Amino acid sequence: MTDDAQADPTADAGDAGTADGPDTLVGEGVDRREDAALLTGDATFTDDIDHPDLAYLTFARSEAAHADIEAVDTAAAESTEGVLAVYTWDDIAASDVPGVLPISTHGLDCDPPGHPVLARDRVRYQGQPIAAVVADDRYRARDAADAVEVTADSRPAVVDQREARAEAAPTLYEDAPDNVAATSELGDREATDDALADADHTVERDLTNNRLIPTALEPRAAVARWDAGDERLTVELTSQSPHGHRGKLSTTLGLPESAIRVVAPSVGGGFGHKGHHHPGEAAAAFAAMDLAVPVKWTATRGENYLAGAHGRDHRTTAELGVDDDGTIRGLAVETDANVGAYGLGGSLGMPGWYGSLLSSQYAIPAIHCETRAVFTNTAPIHSYRGAGRPEANYVAERLVDAAARELGVDPAELRRRNQIAEFPHETAVGATYDSGDYGRGLDEALDAAGWADLRDRPDRDDDGRYLGVGLACYVESTGGGMESGVVRAHPDGTVTVSAGTHSHGQGHATTYAQIVADELGVDYDAIDVREGDSDAIPQGTGTFGSRSTITGGNAVAESARAVRETARELAANLLDAPESAVEYRDGTFSAPDHTAETRAFADVAEAAYGWGVPEGMDPGLEATTFFEQDETAYTFGTHVVSVAVDPETGAVDIERYVALDDCGERVNPTIVEGQIEGGVAQGIGQARYEAAVYADDGSLETDSMLDYAVPRSFHVPDIETEATVTPSPTNDLGVKGIGEAGTIAAPPAVVNAVCDALAPLGIDHVDMPLTGERVRSAVRDARE
Amino acid sequence: MTDDAQADPTADAGDAGTADGPDTLVGEGVDRREDAALLTGDATFTDDIDHPDLAYLTFARSEAAHADIEAVDTAAAESTEGVLAVYTWDDIAASDVPGVLPISTHGLDCDPPGHPVLARDRVRYQGQPIAAVVADDRYRARDAADAVEVTADSRPAVVDQREARAEAAPTLYEDAPDNVAATSELGDREATDDALADADHTVERDLTNNRLIPTALEPRAAVARWDAGDERLTVELTSQSPHGHRGKLSTTLGLPESAIRVVAPSVGGGFGHKGHHHPGEAAAAFAAMDLAVPVKWTATRGENYLAGAHGRDHRTTAELGVDDDGTIRGLAVETDANVGAYGLGGSLGMPGWYGSLLSSQYAIPAIHCETRAVFTNTAPIHSYRGAGRPEANYVAERLVDAAARELGVDPAELRRRNQIAEFPHETAVGATYDSGDYGRGLDEALDAAGWADLRDRPDRDDDGRYLGVGLACYVESTGGGMESGVVRAHPDGTVTVSAGTHSHGQGHATTYAQIVADELGVDYDAIDVREGDSDAIPQGTGTFGSRSTITGGNAVAESARAVRETARELAANLLDAPESAVEYRDGTFSAPDHTAETRAFADVAEAAYGWGVPEGMDPGLEATTFFEQDETAYTFGTHVVSVAVDPETGAVDIERYVALDDCGERVNPTIVEGQIEGGVAQGIGQARYEAAVYADDGSLETDSMLDYAVPRSFHVPDIETEATVTPSPTNDLGVKGIGEAGTIAAPPAVVNAVCDALAPLGIDHVDMPLTGERVRSAVRDARE
Repeated sequence: MTDDAQADPTADAGDAGTADGPDTLVGEGVDRREDAALLTGDATFTDDIDHPDLAYLTFARSEAAHADIEAVDTAAAESTEGVLAVYTWDDIAASDVPGVLPISTHGLDCDPPGHPVLARDRVRYQGQPIAAVVADDRYRARDAADAVEVTADSRPAVVDQREARAEAAPTLYEDAPDNVAATSELGDREATDDALADADHTVERDLTNNRLIPTALEPRAAVARWDAGDERLTVELTSQSPHGHRGKLSTTLGLPESAIRVVAPSVGGGFGHKGHHHPGEAAAAFAAMDLAVPVKWTATRGENYLAGAHGRDHRTTAELGVDDDGTIRGLAVETDANVGAYGLGGSLGMPGWYGSLLSSQYAIPAIHCETRAVFTNTAPIHSYRGAGRPEANYVAERLVDAAARELGVDPAELRRRNQIAEFPHETAVGATYDSGDYGRGLDEALDAAGWADLRDRPDRDDDGRYLGVGLACYVESTGGGMESGVVRAHPDGTVTVSAGTHSHGQGHATTYAQIVADELGVDYDAIDVREGDSDAIPQGTGTFGSRSTITGGNAVAESARAVRETARELAANLLDAPESAVEYRDGTFSAPDHTAETRAFADVAEAAYGWGVPEGMDPGLEATTFFEQDETAYTFGTHVVSVAVDPETGAVDIERYVALDDCGERVNPTIVEGQIEGGVAQGIGQARYEAAVYADDGSLETDSMLDYAVPRSFHVPDIETEATVTPSPTNDLGVKGIGEAGTIAAPPAVVNAVCDALAPLGIDHVDMPLTGERVRSAVRDARE
Repeated sequence: MTDDAQADPTADAGDAGTADGPDTLVGEGVDRREDAALLTGDATFTDDIDHPDLAYLTFARSEAAHADIEAVDTAAAESTEGVLAVYTWDDIAASDVPGVLPISTHGLDCDPPGHPVLARDRVRYQGQPIAAVVADDRYRARDAADAVEVTADSRPAVVDQREARAEAAPTLYEDAPDNVAATSELGDREATDDALADADHTVERDLTNNRLIPTALEPRAAVARWDAGDERLTVELTSQSPHGHRGKLSTTLGLPESAIRVVAPSVGGGFGHKGHHHPGEAAAAFAAMDLAVPVKWTATRGENYLAGAHGRDHRTTAELGVDDDGTIRGLAVETDANVGAYGLGGSLGMPGWYGSLLSSQYAIPAIHCETRAVFTNTAPIHSYRGAGRPEANYVAERLVDAAARELGVDPAELRRRNQIAEFPHETAVGATYDSGDYGRGLDEALDAAGWADLRDRPDRDDDGRYLGVGLACYVESTGGGMESGVVRAHPDGTVTVSAGTHSHGQGHATTYAQIVADELGVDYDAIDVREGDSDAIPQGTGTFGSRSTITGGNAVAESARAVRETARELAANLLDAPESAVEYRDGTFSAPDHTAETRAFADVAEAAYGWGVPEGMDPGLEATTFFEQDETAYTFGTHVVSVAVDPETGAVDIERYVALDDCGERVNPTIVEGQIEGGVAQGIGQARYEAAVYADDGSLETDSMLDYAVPRSFHVPDIETEATVTPSPTNDLGVKGIGEAGTIAAPPAVVNAVCDALAPLGIDHVDMPLTGERVRSAVRDARE
């Protein structure tokens, strides 16, 4: 860690909200508490869960990407040994269960049905579940599912969103004859057209933001149990949002929320994917209720690839206007966002969010963005780490680089000329940036990377590799929405902290305990953090969108302050001193002007619940906060990448990767750095390796790790992390989110560096992923 | 139900706290929700719980009541097939686990050690656990436990508390050479001595309040699991007080409360017994932590009899002074309370509470009570339904009857002359009765029973049976302490209500839902009540001492009112109307003077948690209340019994049983009546059948249902329930507890009736239980 603002992490962190003592844990790189169990195998993941009489569910899925179902013959499956049940849509239709995953139709141009848990009369993507088999063993279930015979009448498929909009394209829904689910506009079209017409130069690019498939270490899974006595469903689930899943299961299953408990145990990575409601958990619940045995469903890696929600997949045309002096005049963007065959939750409207970050760090006076969400015969698309922000930032940062090349100026210099310097700043697409020091961030990143020296290098190294350097700035909207946080002191003085967020790598058990230790003034080790049980925690929103530290962190901080003040009031009563005279230091209350007696926090907790609380004291020592983040906090940063590109093999060597990120106050700098590094690795994955590829008939060609290439550790360079700290004024902790920064910054930074390297060959742009094959083709084409 | 105050149960109930509508559910005899699952076998009791790899724990118990342990040979047990572990105290001593059940030593004359989970060097009662065996099967565990060889050096035992106080008695603890654990005094000795000396008459009785053994349908049981990843213990347990058990397990096991989750599933009767911490659950937890497998312990019926906490067991001498005109002048009581060999929780100090109800319904100007808690070589004694109140009321009501006989006046008339008529009333033993109409209660009970006619009957019927009629008044202290209640509206408008109490027959799922439906103004069916999970519920106190409706009921009522007001505020915002203009009726908010729009409660709930709560609204729609009942509420009543006693067989036939009880407002009159009927049945059990009998060597002779006689349904007469309703001023609902009334009133009422029947034979008193043998002996002795 080289950031001087963090060199003494306790120096400026958290004083405002801290108990009387000056030392704070917020700002310290405390070791993650959660790691021991994860590293020793003691953690319990959903598929580790066992129950007596546990049955296993698996799906018979559609081979065809688009077809009418004529018949589903389950006879052979039903007669397989160990099979308890085989379900088709007919079974759901005959039940009280609605059986359709709910979608938000807000803002849509059509009214498509939701995703049925099992296909009704038609399938629309390869891998869509048609039948569900439940057996006493997972392999028997698989064998029986393979014995389900589907008779289907094929329809032509379409997988590309621009082709899907063409006149003759196959149609997925009668209601959307052009396959467009939703169209949204942001910004002022006329002002933007005028600005581009007036600009001294315009640059235009066609950009593809490649379709990605979330590859968490742990595939999705669920275990459902029905308690007939309590009329109550418990679903243990790989979830980023237990309450969110509870609400969606409530709709899919037709049960009141009060009758459902969702528990998220250890979750092996989410990336958005595990915030979405998929057929698997709903089918397991349906079967558990029907059969009165616990039912487990676990996706295989292949099923996760085939039928889990995918991410990204934008086809974009963008034009940037810039004057001779480098002033950016306007940006026009038109994008077709592939949303796959079905909506999940709010996914059909999701592409509409994307435009709001097209400004990146720049004062662009006119922006217009038209976004179309287009149905295709592909797996559903939903939010994936970054969720619109990487797509938008890629457009902005590629075009600024293109403009720099057009003008012949240093791309850093062009950025500097246009950076926003005053805050709050409202962008042309309606985002209000809360705070920042973009210029400092840019300069420090360039300094750290040795930008000038990198720019001065020869075009090629001694091995003939083309040398390049690129950068990308970014702004990330973080947080948002409501979150609950409970701080509950027990009679023995230990404290349970809970929040509606759910950690699946983010380290909340550590960071929330740091926050509460400071705010409540009790020992860090006395604080236990619990998430992931919808029964034990008030309504929550969940962990996604870089929101947990802002929303959950502030919620628990506010509750901790409330508990501290209640404890102070109780202590005053116990010490028989006025509250104003009570001091609180190192977990002990005293009133030195009134009494030599003291009361430890645990004494106060015991008294708070004691039989016969003294007069003048209310019992209880806990607080619940529903924190609402009204204003978005905008994280920002600059990533600099230097590369060497082998023109013969197309191999790209990332020589250095410098990431400067400013997420306001850092509760735990080590965890922040881990988030950045993980995000950068994933961003490098998008930039260089990953792409979901469909054949024209709608078959997924990248349905395993043999074909879908996630970066391995040796593909990821050492990431040099730098920081500035510009506290956010939007919340008391002064924090901003950081979970997605790396995935936003890395793709354009890497592509900019590679395009810089290849500039001597006259190559303007190479689309992601920059595989060896694709780079070599670009070189070959350029040389021809 | 014949009570005119309840004839229209909705007429006067709950108006104060109700949503704008006038109809209330409070006061209705709504069918119990919990019964369907109980009657169909769908309910899950602790012993129904299964987990993969579940192991079974059982104890090797001491045969001797008092002995020094020389050696414990576990070799044979360890080599039994399927045995996973055999533990003795040495294993606990070698661990980090304290392994001693905590006791409160407050107010004791000595400082005895707590009850070790497994015996250390000495055993002090028959059945004390010496070794614990864990095996893969419960029968193998039993066989192995039987193979544990204990070499012990016997000591003389003492089982009677008065004998234990004698000079030459064996001593249980060096620290208590006279075996007295605690001595407590209530009232003014001198004033009482003077009053008795001045009184025209005194009557004295030696009374035995027989030792009882709680006989819940379900014996005690526990299932413990240790999560090594989370470092967290979960104990599923037959508990009346999940948080209470959590705290006690925390001490016994040396774990922070934040690391323990206690879950009470369906519990088949408690009666105090399941509020106490026994070795079984601690041993199961110890084994689960040690072996890393789930461990179940279930007491057999015999073990419950032998080594579960027993109840009552007072030996009392009492003297009442009364003037010629019937005015009671004073009451002196000296009682020796057997507390068994070890304290559990606060049991050693418990007898000290007993004296506070010695006044019954009478204005007795001087009372003195000296209570001694005495160790004996018997099972620990702890609170059992009534917990001191039945013992005290038995003394008062037997002596008033004795005085009536001495004066030759109608025992009802003597009571009437002395009844307290003004409230609040402070008794000579420091109780402050909150409210009542004792005279009306007495009169209505007498009327209902036809007292005058019963008194006018001849001494004997045509079969030669002696006819008698008796009555007992009572006052019951109810409620007390802190209780939590949460009302949580979910986004779909359904509501989860939870409280720190735990229902095991009391019907909270029904009554709390009635209360919340009224207070919150939502549909009864939308309200789900959850108890029994220490993770899901703020710190609670539990269900015992007739406290749940007062404390938990008022806690959930207060939370419901808070949620209603929050919802009203939200609705005002949604309707864009001032809050004062918002009306709320039938679950719908409107502001007719401002808008034709309306918002259902569910709409408000959805908005409360929606993404981006409108400005001016705080998110969230739940409330937590810690209700503290500062003043005790005193339930009262009069029970009248008529009997026919066969002098040849000693058989007692209860011809009529009329119970008039006033517990303030009745949330659910049907459930109240059920509580009264159950309590009377148990009181008849004490009066007529039940007694734990120890041989002189400390062997329990009544260690099964063959010898310990609980009443069967044909032993319990039809109970005619009458009511008056005198709301309590101590709480907003106006309720008082009713859970223990029957066990308090029935024993003296029955004994008074039998003694009245036998009066022509010159019999003054027969001790409980009035078995045929004992009655016949009394008749025979009287005739000799």
